[in-house]
Amino acid sequence: MDNNSPNAALIIIGNEILSGRTQDTNLNFIAKELKNIGIKFLEVRVIPDIEEKIITTVNELRKTYHYVFTTGGIGPTHDDITAASVAKAFGLEIIKNAEAEKILRDYYTANNKVLNPISLKMAQIPKGANLINNPVSGAPGFVIDNVFVMAGVPKIMQSMFLNILPKLKHGIQIYTKEFDVPYPESKLAALMEQLQEKYNDKIDIGSYPYNKESIYGTNVVFNSIDKEIFDKACVEFLSNLKILGLGILN
Amino acid sequence: MDNNSPNAALIIIGNEILSGRTQDTNLNFIAKELKNIGIKFLEVRVIPDIEEKIITTVNELRKTYHYVFTTGGIGPTHDDITAASVAKAFGLEIIKNAEAEKILRDYYTANNKVLNPISLKMAQIPKGANLINNPVSGAPGFVIDNVFVMAGVPKIMQSMFLNILPKLKHGIQIYTKEFDVPYPESKLAALMEQLQEKYNDKIDIGSYPYNKESIYGTNVVFNSIDKEIFDKACVEFLSNLKILGLGILN
Repeated sequence: MDNNSPNAALIIIGNEILSGRTQDTNLNFIAKELKNIGIKFLEVRVIPDIEEKIITTVNELRKTYHYVFTTGGIGPTHDDITAASVAKAFGLEIIKNAEAEKILRDYYTANNKVLNPISLKMAQIPKGANLINNPVSGAPGFVIDNVFVMAGVPKIMQSMFLNILPKLKHGIQIYTKEFDVPYPESKLAALMEQLQEKYNDKIDIGSYPYNKESIYGTNVVFNSIDKEIFDKACVEFLSNLKILGLGILN
Repeated sequence: MDNNSPNAALIIIGNEILSGRTQDTNLNFIAKELKNIGIKFLEVRVIPDIEEKIITTVNELRKTYHYVFTTGGIGPTHDDITAASVAKAFGLEIIKNAEAEKILRDYYTANNKVLNPISLKMAQIPKGANLINNPVSGAPGFVIDNVFVMAGVPKIMQSMFLNILPKLKHGIQIYTKEFDVPYPESKLAALMEQLQEKYNDKIDIGSYPYNKESIYGTNVVFNSIDKEIFDKACVEFLSNLKILGLGILN
C-alpha cells in the first residue's frame, strides 16, 4: 500500500507470556501508536528468555525492518538477560553506564530507596548505546542503531515508548474508518471484493465478523494513505450497501 | 529444561492485530492449554494477511517445531487468504472438500440460514488435509502434517483448539507455583539467583515485579518437571525468605 513509510517489528521477550501467566498488552499499545504516525507495523515475535534466541531474533529483524522494538527482560534479576543478549547480538561489551548509574542514584535518593548492588545491574548497558528515559521507575531502556530496548511492565514500557516516539521518522498518514454492518460477511463479501479489486493496492479493506445479542454482523475497516480514494471508496461502499438493502449501525 | 516433551509455535495471521484494532487473546488461551499438557510453547509470530509472508513463516516454523498452530484468515471474504496460502506452503492444490461442504450445508440448514456461494468458499481446503470440527459456527479448520489452521474469532478458535487437544502428544507435566512476595525484586534477586544456579536447568525461576496500592512487590514463579526438585526448591525459597526477614502474601 505504501513503500515510502518506515516499517517496524516488535520482539516480546518473556517466558511469562509463553507460559500463559501474563496477557500481553504491549503489542496493542505499540500498534496503535505506530499507526498514528504512519509507521507500518509488519511483524511481532514472542520468544523465551533464552540468550541464543534473543540474539538470532534481534539480528534477523534489525536487518529486515527500519525499527525494531523489544519489551521485557531488563530488570535486576537473574532472568533479565535482554540487555546482555542484545549487546552480544551487536558484538558489543556490556558496561556500567555512568549516565544510567546517575539516573538510578538520583531516582532512588528522590524516592527514599536504597540503591543496592543488585538494582545497580540496571545500569549495565551495551557500550555506545543511548539511554531511553523511564519516568515511572528510573531504570532506563536503551537504543542501539535501530533497536529500541524497553521494559516489559506496561506502564513503564508506555512511558519509554512515548519518549522515543518523537525521535522516530513518521510515515504517511493512514486514513481509517470502521463500519458496523449488522449483516453476516457473506452478504457483503462480493461488494468488498469488488471494491478491493477496483482500488487494488490503494486501499486495504478488512472484514471482521461478530456475533452479539444474536446479531451476526460484520465490522468493515477501510485503510488508505490516499485521502481522495479513501473518501471515494467509503462513499461507494455506503451507496452500494443501500442498493443491496443493507444499512450500517454507526 | 526438558528435551523429551513436544514443542509448539503459533502464527497469528491478521492485519487487525498489527493495526491495533484488535487485542489478541488467542495467544494466552493457547499458552495455558499447552502448558497444562506439557507441550513447550516456544515462539509466536504475528504477521499480516500477505500470502508470501504466510508461506515463508509456515514453512520455516513447521520444520522447526513439532506443532504449529495458526489463527485467523479462514472466513469467506477477500481478505481471508490463510487456507490458500497454507496450501501453497505445502505445494498442495486447494479444492472443494466434500466433507466440509456437507458440514456447512448441514449447519446452515439446522440454523435456518442460506448457504450462498460465498459462504461455500469455506469448504475450500488444501487437498488431503483433515478437518477440525467447529461446533460454534460450522465452518471447519484443518490440519496438514503438523500445521493446525484455526479461525481467529476467539470463541471459534477455542472450540477448535479443544477438539484437537486430545490428538496432541502430551509432554511431561510441568509443576508450577507462584509466590506473592511484598518486597522489591532487588531484595530477592540474590536468593533467586542462588537457587537458579543450584538447580540449574532442573527448574525455571521467573521474577515479575509489580506495584499496587503503593507496594512494590515481586511475583516469583517456579516451574519444573521434576516434582522432587520442585518441592525442594519451593521449601528452600520459603525458608530462606524467612531468614531474610521477608514473608509472602499468598
